[in-house]
Parts: sequence; structure tokens; C-alpha cells
Amino acid sequence: MPETIHAEVVTIGDEILFGQITDTNTQWISTELTTIGIRTVRKSSVGDQADAILQILQEAHQRVNLIILTGGLGPTKDDITKHTLCRYFNTELVMNPDALEMVTGFFAKRGRAMTEMNRLQAALPANCVYIPNHWGTAPGMWFEFDGRVYVSLPGVPFEMKSLMTNLILPKLKAHFRTPVILHKMIRTVGIGESFLAERIEPWEDALPQHIRLAYLPSFGQVKLRLTATGSTAEPLQQELEVQVARVLPLIEQYVFGFDSDELETVVGRLLNQKKLTLAIAESCTGGYVSAQITKVPGASAYFWGSIVSYANDIKVKSLGLDPGILAEHGAVSEPTIRSMAEGVRRALGTSVGIATSGIAGPDGGTPDKPVGTIWIACATDRCTVTRLLKLGQYRDQNIQLTTNYVLNLLREELLTLN
Amino acid sequence: MPETIHAEVVTIGDEILFGQITDTNTQWISTELTTIGIRTVRKSSVGDQADAILQILQEAHQRVNLIILTGGLGPTKDDITKHTLCRYFNTELVMNPDALEMVTGFFAKRGRAMTEMNRLQAALPANCVYIPNHWGTAPGMWFEFDGRVYVSLPGVPFEMKSLMTNLILPKLKAHFRTPVILHKMIRTVGIGESFLAERIEPWEDALPQHIRLAYLPSFGQVKLRLTATGSTAEPLQQELEVQVARVLPLIEQYVFGFDSDELETVVGRLLNQKKLTLAIAESCTGGYVSAQITKVPGASAYFWGSIVSYANDIKVKSLGLDPGILAEHGAVSEPTIRSMAEGVRRALGTSVGIATSGIAGPDGGTPDKPVGTIWIACATDRCTVTRLLKLGQYRDQNIQLTTNYVLNLLREELLTLN
Repeated sequence: MPETIHAEVVTIGDEILFGQITDTNTQWISTELTTIGIRTVRKSSVGDQADAILQILQEAHQRVNLIILTGGLGPTKDDITKHTLCRYFNTELVMNPDALEMVTGFFAKRGRAMTEMNRLQAALPANCVYIPNHWGTAPGMWFEFDGRVYVSLPGVPFEMKSLMTNLILPKLKAHFRTPVILHKMIRTVGIGESFLAERIEPWEDALPQHIRLAYLPSFGQVKLRLTATGSTAEPLQQELEVQVARVLPLIEQYVFGFDSDELETVVGRLLNQKKLTLAIAESCTGGYVSAQITKVPGASAYFWGSIVSYANDIKVKSLGLDPGILAEHGAVSEPTIRSMAEGVRRALGTSVGIATSGIAGPDGGTPDKPVGTIWIACATDRCTVTRLLKLGQYRDQNIQLTTNYVLNLLREELLTLN
Repeated sequence: MPETIHAEVVTIGDEILFGQITDTNTQWISTELTTIGIRTVRKSSVGDQADAILQILQEAHQRVNLIILTGGLGPTKDDITKHTLCRYFNTELVMNPDALEMVTGFFAKRGRAMTEMNRLQAALPANCVYIPNHWGTAPGMWFEFDGRVYVSLPGVPFEMKSLMTNLILPKLKAHFRTPVILHKMIRTVGIGESFLAERIEPWEDALPQHIRLAYLPSFGQVKLRLTATGSTAEPLQQELEVQVARVLPLIEQYVFGFDSDELETVVGRLLNQKKLTLAIAESCTGGYVSAQITKVPGASAYFWGSIVSYANDIKVKSLGLDPGILAEHGAVSEPTIRSMAEGVRRALGTSVGIATSGIAGPDGGTPDKPVGTIWIACATDRCTVTRLLKLGQYRDQNIQLTTNYVLNLLREELLTLN
């Protein structure tokens, strides 16, 4: 079996340390490294300070074969990665003609003036292999030093991802001889982590050493991730499939998908397969359910539209709700949610209608209907199913959980239709 | 001036290393630490492996006064933080009666059965101060060792945040005597990072040593963050205000807000102040604009509703669009976007209507109207303003950028109204 390549991913920038932005780069990078059999063993963030960067480079050098840095390559004064790399490699910045041509072309193509700061972005450490950035002005850099590979990339996620996908990953694959690491994700909804664990304990205990299991809980869902390490892909893939086939019967009713499936992609697939169309009436989720459905490319094949009715007036006018029902039962009630799902299905002329209405918080609760009281519904030509959720007091969580539950209700109903 | 307290934040879990989930905990923790004058100097993630955890604890011990760990405290077999802390502190797990009572009560209150795995969650390292978790089953732990403080918290964001806010931050404040660190964020839209930097260069160069500037670019916005360090809050606050007053005239037309302002909170404030109401017609953004508007607590005071019209049919039926306009110009055109904004304003009876329509991708582009061709509009009783955006080829980015631009168009129009 080839030697396992270990990597560290380091983000540079005060904005991440001080918590002003969420770092999504390291997550993405480690996922991509996994697909080519490189295992990330540590991720770190340090600020825009030379000493902290030098220290982490020295430490990582002791631990791993590959170090990927992102950030600190912008044109502004707080970006110091390049200067620090020069100190680390004991070299200096020289103007790179290819990089200069690239950055000049970038501005010319966009008809924008180039500043002196932008020009200086083409000055690179003398020992680096220049990796052209076709998607922005900060260059990519590749260094080989003392048997390790160092890669430095811009922190802007779109530029970093484009550079990684198109240039760095192929180069890493050619450089290292790596073992095979395969993942299989089983996605469940509607059961807690420890209850899931009890159900599958005998299976989990019997897993072979080279297949590891992890529980990844999030908003009403728990993902089970199997990771297998070996030397050849095909038998390893078969082993994973055997394990999945063994565990599925224990948890079948909770499994909604595998790998990169999301509830919105699974319901999209079902709607497409069954040639059905969808309309949505949203109150407390305020457009979030629709935004999830339309995140999926090609959603226009089955999604016709939504009515977000925050004001009661709109519920009456656009959804055809009976004002009497609203007056008698209120906006957060079983009769209202039923009418909303049926009304939006009728108004937009689709096969299925789903609806949400409730008190997302932080205000608007009453002793009868506290914050977190939320109704959801799904109407088809067969019947209308309604459900009452009793959630917590946090607006963001209530919106996300409600979206999760109404998409799962939709999924369950779609499975019953031809 | 009191000694600066340096902290490291460490997340534990294969799910973060392998990239299956985004770590938002460390961002949140470092922001909160900053508010009590503790500076995060490094953030790291390691997997569920004892050696990696031990190594990072030893390293962090050399560098900082405070180490905060999250994750690896769940009931399942892949969670090993507690055992590893025992090895590190050379102690053992003992059943903690307070923790046991807490976890027993947690299940009793919810009418759910408690598993043996859950019971074992109450076994804690003998040297720890137990920090009760009222929001879940994994305990919080506080250790003092060799002049450092170690805090171990569950990885579930909601539980971690509740523990930090209510128990850990007050305890840290009492334990350490910390300097004052103040931040001021200036939020701009519609100007690139390097152009902004050129405009403010003389001001930036004249900043005193104890006030640092960072540029934080994201989706059509650039945030300028000033960080000031000192010993007393009031004069430091005044210094920051003086600096903001100096830089504002240079960039005034691009500034939409300060600190935690977002475009959606700023437009919400304007709508409230001017007693105006809002309706939204969304096509290519699919509900995302509405979801941003309704993220803001109290949005129901000014937001009446949206029509998400993915099918052309819905544009005609629900927005009252002239089918002739659609037939002649298509859904992605100036006449259509104008009619959508005016139509939704009329249909829902609000003071203002905004609209989006375009080709978000990845499919649906033509030579005439490639992916990324997107129209936005804002209709008021004064006039209707339309704008053509030429964005890129990535669906997610197109949706987010369009949302950004249409909210900024709305903001600009609101500023012209009484």
C-alpha cells in the first residue's frame, strides 16, 4: 500500500481569527484532498502576523508532507503571506513576468484601471512555481522544499476553488503516490444520535479496523459517515456497499438519502420521476423553503412558484383563504395551514402544495401559542396532511428546522404517490 | 495595562477534518472572546484521535493562557475527548452526581428513555469543575492546570453557545484581568477592495500603532474593520470614532452601515422609519431575497409578502404581467422586470415593490442572454428603477450577488423617499 500523505491546511488572516468571517475554505479543501487519497490531519488559522505564520510553517513541516495555505495574498497592506514565505524559504520577491501579464490582462479585459498595488501582486518568492489564477488577481504558488510541498492560494473562496480544481489537485495527484480513501454517507432524518447509535451498535462493533464510522448531527438530521482506507478502489468500494446493505434494514425508515443528497435534491428527484409539480405557501419561513428548493439546478422543471404571505391580507388575497377561518382560528392553526397548502396548490395549479405557518420568534408568542409553535402541511390530490411542530425560541433555528420538517413531509407524501 | 490573554480554540472531530461539516463554532467563540478582551491567536481542528489531541494540548500549553476545546463529547463511540483529557491531566473518569442528575432530568423532562450511553456522559475527569449544560446532555468542563485554563464544550453549536454565553464567559471575565479590545466595522457595497484601499491610503498610513485596519471582502461588499487595543474603554472608543469620522468623507457613497448592520437590517430600519411596506417578486433568486428580509426579527412590520414566480404562468396570473410583454421580450428583459416590480407592488398593495429575473445557471443561457444575465428593479410611487447585471456562471454566487444588488437598489431608492 502506498504511504499515506498527510496534509495540514492553514488559513491566514485576522478576519478569521477575530471571527468576522466564517472559514469555509478549509472544509472544502479537506474534502477535495480526501478524494485524491490525501488525509488532512490538522487545520489551523493564524492572524496576519509574520511570527505566527513562521511558527506554524515550522511545526507543520515536522508533521506532514503537504501544507496548503490560503489567504493573505490580497493587494492591501494587511496581507503579508508572500513576504513571510520569503523569510521562511530564505529568498526574496522578484517580479514574475507571467504573473504580471496575467494581472494586466485581468484588468484590461474588464476595462478597469490597474493600481500599483495590483501590479505588485505579480512579485513572487524567487523559488516558487507560479500557478496562474484565471479567476482573480492574486497568484497561486507551489513550493517544493525538503521533501514537502507547500501551496499558497488566495483566500477568496471562488478563486481558491477554481485554482484547486483546475490546477492544484491534478498537480498533487501527479506528485504523490497515495492510498485509496473512500467515504460513504448515509443520511437520516427524524431520529436522535444516541437512539441511532443504540439501533446499530452490533453492526458498528463488528466493523473491520480499516472502516471507521462517524455520527454527524445537524438540524433534525444525523449523517452516518463510513470511511474506508485501502490500496485498491474496487474491492474497497464493494466492502463499503456490503456494510451499507447490512446496516440499512436497521434504520430504513429514517434514511432519506446517501452521500451528497440533501432533502431538496431528493424531493426534486422524486418530483421529476413522478412528473409532479410543486407550489409553496410560506409564512413563518419567509421564503427559506423556496430558496432551498431553487438552490437545486433544474428546479424550474418541477417548481412553479411560491407565495410568501407575511400579512394575513395576502393569505386571503393570494391564497384564497377564507377570512372566516382566519378570524376564528388565527394564522397559526390547523384549519389555516390546511387551507394554505390547498390554496397555493389550487392558485398555482400544481400537483402538490406545501405550507408553513407559525411563530418563529423572538416576539409574537402567547401563552396558548408560544414561540416555536409551527404548523406545516402537504396537499396532494389524494389528501392533505398537517403536522404541529413544537420547536424552540430561536428564530434562525425555527426557520431551518421547519424547512427540514416540511421538506421531509413532502418527501414522505411523494413516496405514497404514483 | 493588564497583560493580554491569548487563547487557542481547538475543534475536535473527524467530521470537521474530513470536511463533512462547516465549523462555525470557532468563529463564534473568537468573536465572543474578543468582547471580553481575550485575543485568539490560533484556531485548530484535529480528528478523533487521542495522539493528535494530546499533541495540540501540549503545544497550546506552551503558547497561551486559555485553551477552549469543542466537540468529541457526544455519547457515541467516536467521541474521545474526555478520555484524552484524563490522559493529559493524568487522572481518571469518575461519575459526577450533579452531571448525572442533570442528564437524568433532561430525559425525564422530555419523556424520553435514557440509554446507558447517555448515563456515561455524566462520568467526568476527576480534576474538572463541572459546568452544567441545561441545553443538552454533554457536560461542560473547566480545568485549571499549571497557570492555564482549559475549557471543554460540546460541539453542537446551540449547546456550546448557550454554555459560553451563560456560564463560561462570565467565569473567564472573573478569572482573567484583560485589556480592552474594541472593534469598529465600516460596511461598504459597490466598490472593490483595491479601489477602496487607494482611496483611503493616506488615512490608513496615518493610523496609530494600536489601531489596526483589515479589509474583509465578500460578495459585492467590503468591510473595513478597525481594531483598537488599550487599557480603558472610553478614550479608546473616542479614538475609534475620530478615525471613523476622518475616513467617512473619502468613501461616503459606498457605506451602507456599521458593525453588525446587514443590507437587510438597514433596509428594514429605513422601511420602519419611513412607515413604508415592501413586496417582492422573485424569479431567479427563488425566495432567497425574501428569506434574507425575513431573517430580521420584526420584519412583519414592513414586509407583506412575496411571489416567487418560477413558471411564466405564475408571472401572468399572480403578478398581472401582460402576456404580450412576456411573448415579445421574454422573462429576462427590461419590460418584464419593470412589470414584475410594479405588478407585485400593485397585487400586494404595498408602498414599494422589488423584483429579480434572470438566468442563474448552470443551464438556460443563450448567446444573447448568457448565464449570469439578470435584471433587477425597484418600483415606488415616484418611479421604477431597473438595472441589468452581468454576473458569472455559478448559480449560488449569482443568487447571492443578485440579492445583494437588489437590496442595495432598494436601500438607495428608500433614501430618496420621504
